[in-house]
Amino acid sequence: MNLKQLATMLDLSQTTVSRALNGYPEVSEETRRRVMDAAKRHGYRPNPSARRLATGKAGMIGHVLPTGASVDIDPHFVEFLSGLGDYARSHDLDLVLSPAEAGDEETTYRRVAANKQVDAVYVSAPRPRDRRIMLLQQLGLPYLVHGRSEGLDFPYAHVDIDNEGAFHEAGRLLVQLGHRRIALINGDDTQTFAIFRERGLRRALAAGGFDLAPAMVRSVQMTEENGYRATLSLLDQAGAPTAIVCSSLIMALGVVRALRERNLAVPQDVSLVAHDDVFPWLRPENFPVPLSTTRSSIRAAGARLAERLAARISGVEDGARGEVWPVDLVVRGSVAGAPG
Amino acid sequence: MNLKQLATMLDLSQTTVSRALNGYPEVSEETRRRVMDAAKRHGYRPNPSARRLATGKAGMIGHVLPTGASVDIDPHFVEFLSGLGDYARSHDLDLVLSPAEAGDEETTYRRVAANKQVDAVYVSAPRPRDRRIMLLQQLGLPYLVHGRSEGLDFPYAHVDIDNEGAFHEAGRLLVQLGHRRIALINGDDTQTFAIFRERGLRRALAAGGFDLAPAMVRSVQMTEENGYRATLSLLDQAGAPTAIVCSSLIMALGVVRALRERNLAVPQDVSLVAHDDVFPWLRPENFPVPLSTTRSSIRAAGARLAERLAARISGVEDGARGEVWPVDLVVRGSVAGAPG
Repeated sequence: MNLKQLATMLDLSQTTVSRALNGYPEVSEETRRRVMDAAKRHGYRPNPSARRLATGKAGMIGHVLPTGASVDIDPHFVEFLSGLGDYARSHDLDLVLSPAEAGDEETTYRRVAANKQVDAVYVSAPRPRDRRIMLLQQLGLPYLVHGRSEGLDFPYAHVDIDNEGAFHEAGRLLVQLGHRRIALINGDDTQTFAIFRERGLRRALAAGGFDLAPAMVRSVQMTEENGYRATLSLLDQAGAPTAIVCSSLIMALGVVRALRERNLAVPQDVSLVAHDDVFPWLRPENFPVPLSTTRSSIRAAGARLAERLAARISGVEDGARGEVWPVDLVVRGSVAGAPG
Repeated sequence: MNLKQLATMLDLSQTTVSRALNGYPEVSEETRRRVMDAAKRHGYRPNPSARRLATGKAGMIGHVLPTGASVDIDPHFVEFLSGLGDYARSHDLDLVLSPAEAGDEETTYRRVAANKQVDAVYVSAPRPRDRRIMLLQQLGLPYLVHGRSEGLDFPYAHVDIDNEGAFHEAGRLLVQLGHRRIALINGDDTQTFAIFRERGLRRALAAGGFDLAPAMVRSVQMTEENGYRATLSLLDQAGAPTAIVCSSLIMALGVVRALRERNLAVPQDVSLVAHDDVFPWLRPENFPVPLSTTRSSIRAAGARLAERLAARISGVEDGARGEVWPVDLVVRGSVAGAPG
């Protein structure tokens, strides 16, 4: 069945049917539902050329993917993609990944914008004064940021979690439990998620009258091995930590390995809290000692990004609305009072 | 700089320049190099519309991505994507992910083929008599399979690793070390990679005069928790295994947790071998007892897929050539002679 046949059957114009299928606001909810039902029943899917002609839209979300021999995409990307893909499917949107040389993404953004091959893009892993966001603002290509930048002189649309609040709450709990020497094993601290987490932890310690000394902070790529190495280096210095807050479950595997190797018990000798993106394949409750976490589903974030991108593409959403999700602090067996 | 300016500068026709940039075989290697060098020096990148006009190609690789609330994309996808993206970038190819309802990918393949939005697609996680491959063969859209199917009556282009050989070698070593009760914790056994692995292990046991009893085989989604549960259920039955072969490093985390919980030592009580896709974030040598593995870089496979897809798109490769990579068996501390 093609668009014309569908329109004839419904006694509507092709333009109306097309707009209904693509969620345009000028079509009434009742008509939209009637069209969607008929399209589903008769297996109609608009092809992108027809769609582009009727609506001016490509039906594509874009993402510029940094690549290179030394670039490892973080495994949390698959969970994000599961959520984004699931929502995008239900709205007939494809995702175009445009690989770019890491550090020179701007060239690729310019190409993507010039080619009009996608209707909107999302930006991930933002940094302070993120040049990609500044460029997109100039280019006029609709975009949405997963995370937040800082130091930009214009507002921009984003979906983020409250990384600062999450690590503040983790730190506050540890301070209340009597910990003074609290260490942070963070991800890449040129990125805002890591900056916000450090800020939150620092604020919690300051409220208790303590410092987060530079010697107690590590910033590394989030692998098991780096979690292990960072922990050993923290334990080997004077004033070793009695509590560790760490930015990923995968790093936490390495933290646990290092503590076990030094015969330090969790939580009797060292308390441990990690951030959990909610991977189906690695669960904090299954750690040798169930792990306390700051928890936020990155899959849900992926779905929400897709939902808002679809809304921006169809014109239902515009402007620079930001949303920041609260993060749960889930306390399990890995935290206890500071050793005496 | 646009195509015309580049062509004028080089004193070549626009068609020749375009073909050179897209690796067409009728352009001499010397001309191709001259054009590539000039394009790079002057920052020229063809836009897809110009490219499509000049070459009839979109510069896009497609992949139909199964999605759904209950579908978890396996984390090895990010490593595959790192390899594929890195190569694709160097050849100006984008990747279009078209989300499909898991179990009904055919509808989406038909749409992708009809729309001509991509020049070629790859198929992953094939099953025996894979319907997607049969459909692509009919549709005439260039494709490449990551893995192999079985029971098809036509040849098809593919890149695979020798899963059967890998698990045969693992089984052969364990049999030589005196193990008789060898268990397999496998992935989804409706997929050929899992079928081939079981076949290889079965063949190794048969060569030693033993059976791989159904009670010694588990087929599960490859998560830490499933590795843990499968191990407990194997240990709880009569004739518990003295050796376990397992299809992923993530499951092996759960195997190690279950063995520890039962106070069974690796390798004194139970030997362990796992398949390693070579993730940068989780390394077998960093397990509590360094893990013996069948090792093959899924990142290298992603890069090779992109390389062959680029060759098929430009016409340098055609036909149904298959390639199957040998897999290393890397022996570390987790295997030993069967307990007396």
